[in-house]
Amino acid sequence: MPRGDGDPECIVLKLSNGYNIGVEYKGQKIGLVKKGGKVATVTANKASHDSKKKTISILAVGGTIASKVDYRTGGVVAAYSADELIAAVPELAEIANIRGRLIMQVLSEEMRFEHYAKIASEVAKEIEAGADGVIILHGTDTMGYSSAALSFMLQNLPVGVLLVGAQRSSDRGSSDAAMNLVCAARFLVGSDFAGVGVCMHGSLEDDFCLVHSGTKVRKMHTSRRDAFRSVNVKPIAKIGYENGKIEMLGESYAKKNKEKTKTKLKLANKFEDKVALVKIFPGMHAKQLGYFAENGYKGLVIEGTGLGQMPVNDDKIASENSRIFEVVRRLVADGCVVVMASQCIYGRVNMNVYSTARELEKIGVIGAGDMHPELAYVKLKWLLGNYSGGEAKKKMNENLVGELEPRTEVEKDFE
Amino acid sequence: MPRGDGDPECIVLKLSNGYNIGVEYKGQKIGLVKKGGKVATVTANKASHDSKKKTISILAVGGTIASKVDYRTGGVVAAYSADELIAAVPELAEIANIRGRLIMQVLSEEMRFEHYAKIASEVAKEIEAGADGVIILHGTDTMGYSSAALSFMLQNLPVGVLLVGAQRSSDRGSSDAAMNLVCAARFLVGSDFAGVGVCMHGSLEDDFCLVHSGTKVRKMHTSRRDAFRSVNVKPIAKIGYENGKIEMLGESYAKKNKEKTKTKLKLANKFEDKVALVKIFPGMHAKQLGYFAENGYKGLVIEGTGLGQMPVNDDKIASENSRIFEVVRRLVADGCVVVMASQCIYGRVNMNVYSTARELEKIGVIGAGDMHPELAYVKLKWLLGNYSGGEAKKKMNENLVGELEPRTEVEKDFE
Repeated sequence: MPRGDGDPECIVLKLSNGYNIGVEYKGQKIGLVKKGGKVATVTANKASHDSKKKTISILAVGGTIASKVDYRTGGVVAAYSADELIAAVPELAEIANIRGRLIMQVLSEEMRFEHYAKIASEVAKEIEAGADGVIILHGTDTMGYSSAALSFMLQNLPVGVLLVGAQRSSDRGSSDAAMNLVCAARFLVGSDFAGVGVCMHGSLEDDFCLVHSGTKVRKMHTSRRDAFRSVNVKPIAKIGYENGKIEMLGESYAKKNKEKTKTKLKLANKFEDKVALVKIFPGMHAKQLGYFAENGYKGLVIEGTGLGQMPVNDDKIASENSRIFEVVRRLVADGCVVVMASQCIYGRVNMNVYSTARELEKIGVIGAGDMHPELAYVKLKWLLGNYSGGEAKKKMNENLVGELEPRTEVEKDFE
Repeated sequence: MPRGDGDPECIVLKLSNGYNIGVEYKGQKIGLVKKGGKVATVTANKASHDSKKKTISILAVGGTIASKVDYRTGGVVAAYSADELIAAVPELAEIANIRGRLIMQVLSEEMRFEHYAKIASEVAKEIEAGADGVIILHGTDTMGYSSAALSFMLQNLPVGVLLVGAQRSSDRGSSDAAMNLVCAARFLVGSDFAGVGVCMHGSLEDDFCLVHSGTKVRKMHTSRRDAFRSVNVKPIAKIGYENGKIEMLGESYAKKNKEKTKTKLKLANKFEDKVALVKIFPGMHAKQLGYFAENGYKGLVIEGTGLGQMPVNDDKIASENSRIFEVVRRLVADGCVVVMASQCIYGRVNMNVYSTARELEKIGVIGAGDMHPELAYVKLKWLLGNYSGGEAKKKMNENLVGELEPRTEVEKDFE
């Protein structure tokens, strides 16, 4: 590979399994084995439109699934266009009429709510133009935040919208990109799902994918192909890769119906800027929260401990603790909507069990129920973008798009 | 139950299953069923010292396991003394000579590093006085932080130290307190373990407990009895409740040996105050990090996304992103040790795959490897309390007490 920023004493070789290896060349001889061929250029698969088939729009926004290795550095950069990716997965054309375009090139760690609003608008355009389903090629890092944001923004969805990513880049033999895409397309064409979901590997093998709820999904592993998990609910569906079988697992999900296709899709893509997500930890100083009080924050999601707690009491050793409570009390008094979620991630917040949390509830902090912290953050940001503080507070405890289950099935949701 | 802060129109009854129920009494008749007996007072079990048995010290610091229901409010408050709890679990006396005392009464959400230092000193005292094992009765909320702190503080441990908690308070029929305690005592007496661990339920049933590494354990569910999980490693051991069988699961754990019993236990209980744990999220403002730069923070653990990332690039839509990177760059330049962990929790940080993380590494941000964010925070706080910034940075990437595995076994560590 061309020399990048690495060790100047080494040459970097790309192995057939996709990994790079650095070899010190000092004192070594380099000989020509054989001349390589010209690198084949992938050309777009111009399948003719089949009116018997449904139409799926694929929108690429960035991430590994739309990436290839940068041979300058050996790292992975966003590069593939949607057309190239479609051409690389010919099975797609057998499932549906495919149309695709690159709407932005943003790595998922760089995604912001302005991007989410743009993605939602583009999805709406595709649906208005007749798409029977939409696939969004997205980086996996913040995919859970994006899918939650889209779940709230895209109201009265008449068709399914699936975010699809890859944990291995598309030019590696072990890439999960093609299978995730194929399963997503099959699910959009073969199910009655009409909501926002995430379709990714369900196991370490290439045997099935899972479709997770757009709100309840979370990336739970840095690198595994089955990194995405449904938190506190069952996945919506399981899709076999070989046999194409769709098995619906979740009981409650947004379904297609005649009413919806008649109703015009509504787009509510505003978010309040002054909302933050803050993690509580032992030894935290109250002043760290001062920024939010001083800058008129409208919403704050606290990632507390256990059932929804944070330091409240004042004792001789830990006199600063009382002040964290004081800052939160002042924030609430100033009209900031403060929501308590749990860093446990699984399970639900219950602020009625322990005295500490009861104190917090008394000053106006509201529990996030079974919404994990990142979901609670996106919901609060969206609510405050579209409703008054009072209404937002009320709706925080209502189930709007499947994000808040009235009861957690303890036995089934956590392995 | 006596009337508390609840609805004045209701009376609250405690049911035999331990739950409370509120009943509106307006227009209802209340009759006497029968007169209740006097509440039995539990007295300490004064088992005589048996020189053939090992001795276990039980130190109570607070939490649900040392709590009972406050009949004023119906909530749970810290109340039981260690003696009362020992008396309530007579099996303990069959396993070992038990001595116990209450060293503090702090709910786990109120725990700070001053408390951890005090607990470590008390554990050291018990070991010096001849204890063959120590059990710490601790609240579950921040138990993972405490067990990590104790793992670093207690060096050359000659015996095992187990933190034991309960997810259900001890006066409820469904309490897990007794079984967790019994399994912990059996493990301390019957194994060669000489490190810090956490002993809690291994399943929803009362069939077995798991002993987790003190550093790799994390509370992963708000309420389930099997809420504690080993992150990226196998649990150390499984202890059957009925049969008392101890099955060692982990390959590498600190063991008892003659060398250790000769060596005097070392206590390194200093922590740097100016260390924080900050979560990265889409839409975050750089100014939120300003506090750490302005106040001379010595360490910062960033809970980034995926393999260890955060916004770095600057584009037209998201001009603020570049500034988060700038604040971090300035912090590092000012001598702050900045560590990148992942909000995925499972898996390991790898800053060599994507261009964004490579940029961070270039400015001096170091990856946390397979240490989850809370562990990385405790380790950094401890390192900076005992070493210079440069040494701390170096040791952050070394395995000191089993907290950093050189390689994650992808297939086995995550369900």
